[in-house]
Amino acid sequence: MTAAVEAAVFDVFGTVVDWRRGVAEAVAPVLARVAPGIPPDTFADAWRAEYQPAMARIRSGRRGYVALDDLHLENLDRVLVRFGLAEAVDAPTRHAMNRAWERLPPWADAVPGLHDLRARTIVAPCSNGSIALMTRLARQAGLPWDCILGADIAAAYKPDPAVYLASAAALRLAPGRVMMVAAHNDDLAAAQALGFRTAFVPRPGEHGAGQTTDLTPAGEWDVIAPDLRALAARLAC
Amino acid sequence: MTAAVEAAVFDVFGTVVDWRRGVAEAVAPVLARVAPGIPPDTFADAWRAEYQPAMARIRSGRRGYVALDDLHLENLDRVLVRFGLAEAVDAPTRHAMNRAWERLPPWADAVPGLHDLRARTIVAPCSNGSIALMTRLARQAGLPWDCILGADIAAAYKPDPAVYLASAAALRLAPGRVMMVAAHNDDLAAAQALGFRTAFVPRPGEHGAGQTTDLTPAGEWDVIAPDLRALAARLAC
Repeated sequence: MTAAVEAAVFDVFGTVVDWRRGVAEAVAPVLARVAPGIPPDTFADAWRAEYQPAMARIRSGRRGYVALDDLHLENLDRVLVRFGLAEAVDAPTRHAMNRAWERLPPWADAVPGLHDLRARTIVAPCSNGSIALMTRLARQAGLPWDCILGADIAAAYKPDPAVYLASAAALRLAPGRVMMVAAHNDDLAAAQALGFRTAFVPRPGEHGAGQTTDLTPAGEWDVIAPDLRALAARLAC
Repeated sequence: MTAAVEAAVFDVFGTVVDWRRGVAEAVAPVLARVAPGIPPDTFADAWRAEYQPAMARIRSGRRGYVALDDLHLENLDRVLVRFGLAEAVDAPTRHAMNRAWERLPPWADAVPGLHDLRARTIVAPCSNGSIALMTRLARQAGLPWDCILGADIAAAYKPDPAVYLASAAALRLAPGRVMMVAAHNDDLAAAQALGFRTAFVPRPGEHGAGQTTDLTPAGEWDVIAPDLRALAARLAC
């Protein structure tokens, strides 16, 4: 089955990097100054909770494509209002906070796992992050991508089919030669419906100790692996 | 001046890799079989001579954007007809020959020079090669790009301004924060006109021993360096 896979493309936020810890650590110094009562994890969750609604407006066509960097900043504005911090956090601080998304920590297995996978196949993000965001994140985290695919090259957001199809097309590969790797069942379902191979790598700590979603596979995925090193070992068989 | 450069983007064919030697070596076994009288260098030059005319049809709007991989294959068909080899070389052989462009050898300074540069700035191709072609070439040659920019993300061919501008925009950088690196004065002139920084790295062997073009700088480039290691050293000052 896997002999024909020529590229592995990855969800990034949650699958490759720990956005929750990264954002929490980045906002903690600001919160300590302006709102010490708000736990950084709570703020990170609130910021991330704006992610899907912001993209939904673009997926539905009510708004043209805007890079995720800009959506993140708008979402931050919204969350600051909600926490009563609109006056307390100035624009330069907001821009600095927004760069948290370029400095997220990789899961411990991610960098060695991607190196292992890259020895066999092309590896690239198929993320909703922009080329700019994915490039800077990769430099910070040491993610050895061969190229950056995903939302920007399609001017669309997953799970819009255009993102997956544009990513395979950019490599001049049929979807069946490309494996989508994600910690999220809905991402894999969207890719599988288009003919992609799929690998589920659960990240039970993505949302913290109380996580209830995506703990187990919810589809007939080609590979299920506990982390990216294990995935590389599976594809080497 | 150079302190503000946040990304260096590169012409690839000629500047980073030696297309003439790579193509000649790749076609030599086929020519030895079907036309031993044709020197491989001559064939490589003839194939490359079709490059600008093929892109000109797209630049002028007479044809929609087609990836360079496809143009290369069409150009090969044309060259084979001209050499009287249309019957002698079958389709699978043509496709195999076309992959020569994914396996071009880097100039000796290119890989270490790019590593040096990457330690300071984002490095990416701003080539007329597709994402697929640039990705596979980078894997073969060991070019440590952070991402792949250039023709595909603009659906246009240099020196169309769209290619340079889309490349800077993909990184969310103003042109003045991006340095275009090329062995070709016309490429630098197009980038400079849009506000890019420029670095000229002459490659006097690109066209073989008799080269007459691009031996010296023909503009007010920001940096002139004999190779990519020297360029990295200059930017480190």
